[in-house]
Amino acid sequence: MSYIMDKLKLLKEAEAQISQASTREKNFALEKVAEAIDNSREEILRNNQIDIENAIKANISEALIDRLKLDNSRIDGIIEGIKIVIKLPDPVWKSDRVWTVENGLTISKMTVPLGVMGIVYESRPNVTVDAFALALKSGNCIILRGSSTAINSNLSLVKAIKEGLKRSNISPDVIQFIEDTDRKYVLEMLRAKDYIDLIIPRGGKELIDFVVANSLVPTLQTGVGNCHVFVDKSADLEKAISIVENAKTQRVGVCNACETLLVHEEIAKEFLPKLYEKLKGQVEFRGCKKTMSIIPVNMATDLDWSEEYLDYILAVKLVASVDEAISHINKYGSKHSEAIVTENYSNANKFTRSIDASTVYVNASTRFTDGGEFGFGAEMGISTQKIHARGPIGLDQLVTNKYIVLGQGQIRK
Amino acid sequence: MSYIMDKLKLLKEAEAQISQASTREKNFALEKVAEAIDNSREEILRNNQIDIENAIKANISEALIDRLKLDNSRIDGIIEGIKIVIKLPDPVWKSDRVWTVENGLTISKMTVPLGVMGIVYESRPNVTVDAFALALKSGNCIILRGSSTAINSNLSLVKAIKEGLKRSNISPDVIQFIEDTDRKYVLEMLRAKDYIDLIIPRGGKELIDFVVANSLVPTLQTGVGNCHVFVDKSADLEKAISIVENAKTQRVGVCNACETLLVHEEIAKEFLPKLYEKLKGQVEFRGCKKTMSIIPVNMATDLDWSEEYLDYILAVKLVASVDEAISHINKYGSKHSEAIVTENYSNANKFTRSIDASTVYVNASTRFTDGGEFGFGAEMGISTQKIHARGPIGLDQLVTNKYIVLGQGQIRK
Repeated sequence: MSYIMDKLKLLKEAEAQISQASTREKNFALEKVAEAIDNSREEILRNNQIDIENAIKANISEALIDRLKLDNSRIDGIIEGIKIVIKLPDPVWKSDRVWTVENGLTISKMTVPLGVMGIVYESRPNVTVDAFALALKSGNCIILRGSSTAINSNLSLVKAIKEGLKRSNISPDVIQFIEDTDRKYVLEMLRAKDYIDLIIPRGGKELIDFVVANSLVPTLQTGVGNCHVFVDKSADLEKAISIVENAKTQRVGVCNACETLLVHEEIAKEFLPKLYEKLKGQVEFRGCKKTMSIIPVNMATDLDWSEEYLDYILAVKLVASVDEAISHINKYGSKHSEAIVTENYSNANKFTRSIDASTVYVNASTRFTDGGEFGFGAEMGISTQKIHARGPIGLDQLVTNKYIVLGQGQIRK
Repeated sequence: MSYIMDKLKLLKEAEAQISQASTREKNFALEKVAEAIDNSREEILRNNQIDIENAIKANISEALIDRLKLDNSRIDGIIEGIKIVIKLPDPVWKSDRVWTVENGLTISKMTVPLGVMGIVYESRPNVTVDAFALALKSGNCIILRGSSTAINSNLSLVKAIKEGLKRSNISPDVIQFIEDTDRKYVLEMLRAKDYIDLIIPRGGKELIDFVVANSLVPTLQTGVGNCHVFVDKSADLEKAISIVENAKTQRVGVCNACETLLVHEEIAKEFLPKLYEKLKGQVEFRGCKKTMSIIPVNMATDLDWSEEYLDYILAVKLVASVDEAISHINKYGSKHSEAIVTENYSNANKFTRSIDASTVYVNASTRFTDGGEFGFGAEMGISTQKIHARGPIGLDQLVTNKYIVLGQGQIRK
């Protein structure tokens, strides 16, 4: 246990300091980190190249290699990400509720850092820096466990982060990285409930399920998105086509992309051929039987309704009413992002009230579920669970609260 | 799995209805439940008597039997508890944040019910009704697993609740009770992550640890309280004596009672004899070596600093500074409730900033950490964890959020 325990003890020691750091100290440290990354471009790119070569040798898919790849412009993006976090308001030691009870005690519900956050993530090395920057700004320590595929890239990024921190008032110990990718150390991390306050898995369904099943530390589930667009009878069809096209194709490999289209059967004959005309070269359609009688598409099976394709594939199902659309979505959806396209007030109202999801849209693309688009500036993923935080996880979701009670000698009767 | 699964499926069906119920419908249902409990007094007391007799036969401690016992006045208290919940504001479908982003999308962060809550609890039968009332008011379904000791009392209470619900618009299926106390069914409940959104264990440390270790459903940890009072050098000694007496003795078996007293060594010679005079017949003192040189008490061992006595025992330690007090509390405390008695502004400020706990007091008793005392009206326990809810869990902590995004055809660029 001592390999992981040594890191956890360093985090515990660093926690008291960073939780009390001023906004100015935290922003200064982030600036120094951005500088250090800028100054380490050569080393980072050289190490990334090693990861890429190993990935090619291991026959890893092109899509994954693209996620893994860093170049100067992606490093610019990483640095820009830090600068965005610097500009965001500090989420710590604020209150939206101060009140005084009958006996004269004044109670303030103050925001405070969570303490120590753990991130278990897959191949994208930019997560290393993004997650660190959000943790530091919210006064949290962080322990990171990335994939073996990205190990050299991550190590050089963590080295640069620590070099930056050394030039600030914040201890370099606030970030710990698990260099040894042996799975047993992930398990030790997941069981360290006295040292880690929250673990966020970032990656595919398998990773998330593994973390949730094995963690004694509370977890925040992110990412899996089986999102729907429902085109209602009264929809403005031009808006509908543009929204479905955007939700499906603007970026297919993301959790807020549309996977299933539901169409009210009374407008399907008018709407589906237009949509099909627009997308047929680009998107594979899989339809229910009624859909197949209108456009020439493959048949969808029951499995399609549950699938997160992350690809240029769209399942299509006709429904008889907004109620049927709601039932279908609440049964098969992953509670991520759901949209209705309608001009009918009551249906919009019913849909937004009844759909159980982190985000529900009327006449807009599901692709907007994102910390940046919501105005949170940056995010740690999209939570699809109900407790602690639901939807984009920004700085305001990386804190907890502490009640401060100021008295004049009150005792309880 | 079908015994538990049948109940979970009923909850899932009831969830859509109760989540959309109006405040008026929920309050009406609660009134009917209160009436039904009032009308079932005889049956409830008869069944409680069976539990009591079984407990006596099983040589269960008097303290536990007292917790188990119902009489007419305790049933009055249970009914009064429901009436308090009726009067509380509905926490559902509210927003404290609506904003419009640059592209014209208007985003509202609305409160919505969690869905299905699970409660695993020990002997007090009033928890059955308290937890149900809070769940119903917050639009949640609930599944309850009580202890075998209270099984007959709980069954008659649940029967009355369901009879009340039958006279309302809310389905009696919103409450499910696990009649079979075989432990394997608790495990099935803890693993039903697709059916239950949050599990709250209410009971001793062993129960809480068991639930957290075995649950795939997110949990909310409540209850364990190793709370401290620190009497600073500049304390007003009269306030200090009254606060320590209250925090230690007003009710010893509760999580917000004081277990360890820290005293600044510069006032210990004046303060400790006065406190000792006041409490010596009632409270057993266990002191550090320095304490023993001032008052005639038993020696505290290292174990005492971690112990939640829940009894008329007080550990006493002298410290040289507010910093030493803070270190001691952050090392040994259970992050529940911590108090400083001081007239020094900077020490009060430092203590409230640096102590890591759900609630931090200046010049007041730790006994105030309570949903009722905080003005929340009622509570589901005191959370000592950092995620989702920390401190008293009232109605506002039994909801999650849903972002509603209203557009005019927006797509992501």
